[in-house]
Amino acid sequence: MPSQKLSQNTFKLASCPSIKAFASVVGKKEGEGPLFAHFDTIHTDTTLGEKTWEKAESKLQTDSVNAALSKASLSPTEVDLLFAGDLLNQCIGSSFGLRELNIPFYGLYGACSTMAESLGLASIFADNNLVTNAVAVTSSHFCSAERQFRFPLEYGGQRTPTAQWTVTGSGAVVVSQSQDPPYVKAVTVGKIQDLGIKDINNMGAAMAPAAAYVIKQYLTDTFTKPSDYDLIVTGDLGTVGSDLLIQLLNMDKINISKVHNDCGKMIFDPNTQDVHAGGSGCGCSASVLCSYILKQVQSGVLKEVLFIATGALMSPTSIQQGESIPAIAHLVHISNKKW
Amino acid sequence: MPSQKLSQNTFKLASCPSIKAFASVVGKKEGEGPLFAHFDTIHTDTTLGEKTWEKAESKLQTDSVNAALSKASLSPTEVDLLFAGDLLNQCIGSSFGLRELNIPFYGLYGACSTMAESLGLASIFADNNLVTNAVAVTSSHFCSAERQFRFPLEYGGQRTPTAQWTVTGSGAVVVSQSQDPPYVKAVTVGKIQDLGIKDINNMGAAMAPAAAYVIKQYLTDTFTKPSDYDLIVTGDLGTVGSDLLIQLLNMDKINISKVHNDCGKMIFDPNTQDVHAGGSGCGCSASVLCSYILKQVQSGVLKEVLFIATGALMSPTSIQQGESIPAIAHLVHISNKKW
Repeated sequence: MPSQKLSQNTFKLASCPSIKAFASVVGKKEGEGPLFAHFDTIHTDTTLGEKTWEKAESKLQTDSVNAALSKASLSPTEVDLLFAGDLLNQCIGSSFGLRELNIPFYGLYGACSTMAESLGLASIFADNNLVTNAVAVTSSHFCSAERQFRFPLEYGGQRTPTAQWTVTGSGAVVVSQSQDPPYVKAVTVGKIQDLGIKDINNMGAAMAPAAAYVIKQYLTDTFTKPSDYDLIVTGDLGTVGSDLLIQLLNMDKINISKVHNDCGKMIFDPNTQDVHAGGSGCGCSASVLCSYILKQVQSGVLKEVLFIATGALMSPTSIQQGESIPAIAHLVHISNKKW
Repeated sequence: MPSQKLSQNTFKLASCPSIKAFASVVGKKEGEGPLFAHFDTIHTDTTLGEKTWEKAESKLQTDSVNAALSKASLSPTEVDLLFAGDLLNQCIGSSFGLRELNIPFYGLYGACSTMAESLGLASIFADNNLVTNAVAVTSSHFCSAERQFRFPLEYGGQRTPTAQWTVTGSGAVVVSQSQDPPYVKAVTVGKIQDLGIKDINNMGAAMAPAAAYVIKQYLTDTFTKPSDYDLIVTGDLGTVGSDLLIQLLNMDKINISKVHNDCGKMIFDPNTQDVHAGGSGCGCSASVLCSYILKQVQSGVLKEVLFIATGALMSPTSIQQGESIPAIAHLVHISNKKW
């Protein structure tokens, strides 16, 4: 049975593909945060024994995929398709991290929305019997991101209060046509939103409209309200972007404040870990999803979850050329029960 | 009826989605080449009236998508999904070029394989009734690519004989469940191949193994031979990579020499246009596909075509760190007739 279209961009997945396994690999700082007990691997040496930060980031992806495959008792030859991407120029985190696996590969670029983009595509493919097993993965690394997007660490640049801290981490999922929760019930593909924000140190503000759009779209398509969900969790809006998201949805008379949280707020402790506006990066929503959130859905503590990863589609070059920051968010409805 | 899996990574598209419309937009040098009569728009000013090369590249995508939509008599609101990517860091060619369209957007990164990746995904979605209309698009620009991957033009760097010339151009297709050729009959998703090539000026050699893999896979999956096709066309291997591809397949007793051509060899005249080993860039295979090739399939001059766009998944950073060049190629079987 093919997926059912609820609107132009919302796919109701009739078979509810299962997230057969998931794994998260993070760095030292993330391992010192409130979610430490939920990660599969915490590296205290954030080089991961590699000679460069970029090679370390690649290894995060290698390790999270291998851990997820191991939990699913699958060899790479049993995976039909791999959806992956990251923040590094030309997405080298993924291509170098996954080249040894020999799995058919579709590379993605969704900035920090990549976990929802890749999980969404893998789930749509599984729901339509196009794959038996598909893997979705992404990563980010604080040190590779800082030198690519801002300054090399050695420069010792100051950070503004609205700036976020790129998470060192990776999350991977195996999506299958199997029978155990968590299930993926629906996917809404985002549209690029650009309200003219130009402040590179305030990504949360740039991304909030994209999250607001896709949440409103899904609630409308499914005739549901925020209280129908146990958690509506955004990717990495941080504290500034989260407040804006709630305000934006309030303007449409949608109040998500009681069920909203943000992976960028969850991964670090604001009192003991100085990260200003919160965590960010592809690896932020990926590692929080593939640890705490999916465990809670699996055990039934959380029953209905909307996962919305948000991405800022800018580059240092576009900022230097005076452009505003377009953003996108994709939504995945994850549940403890099938439709 | 869902797509039929012929192997782990080959999807036979039962309904044969139609390429309802296609359009190409190129720069001055491409307009002086042998295919000049087939392009929809030739810009003699390669700034396209924009202030930066990156903005000019974005405009190539805006223009090719709008031209394809116009030919298909579709407004953006009638398009369910847009698959797009490019070579620029963080794929800003696509995100800035397409942000005004307000179409649900999945960003891709496949380097120069992006036209086959995006067309393949759009076709799989159409074949499974997941979209009524989907758009696939990519681009490259000589000037934005030179300064990002090699040297700014002002530096006047010398080029080696194996170097290729990045095409300034974009190609866009509208894939629909309609009844006119060209049709997409099958898609094979590539795997990352890395034989250890480290020469940034010899991308053709790095990409040839990826093309060889996917061609061999598709011929095996379909029990066909090269002579069953009128054209087996690779993306941008250029002269060096094309020779290697033929040699690699000969080792497996597959002789494609009589039906093979390469978009990088087709777009420029080696006698009058000094581009060394040929054209390259996402826009090379995209603009040749969305002009000469699809016109020939539409008219029936070419009946069965295998289109294989090839991408080198490196970055300047990975090269500086001593890494070899992983590559990927995706295959799309395009035909004048349905299965």
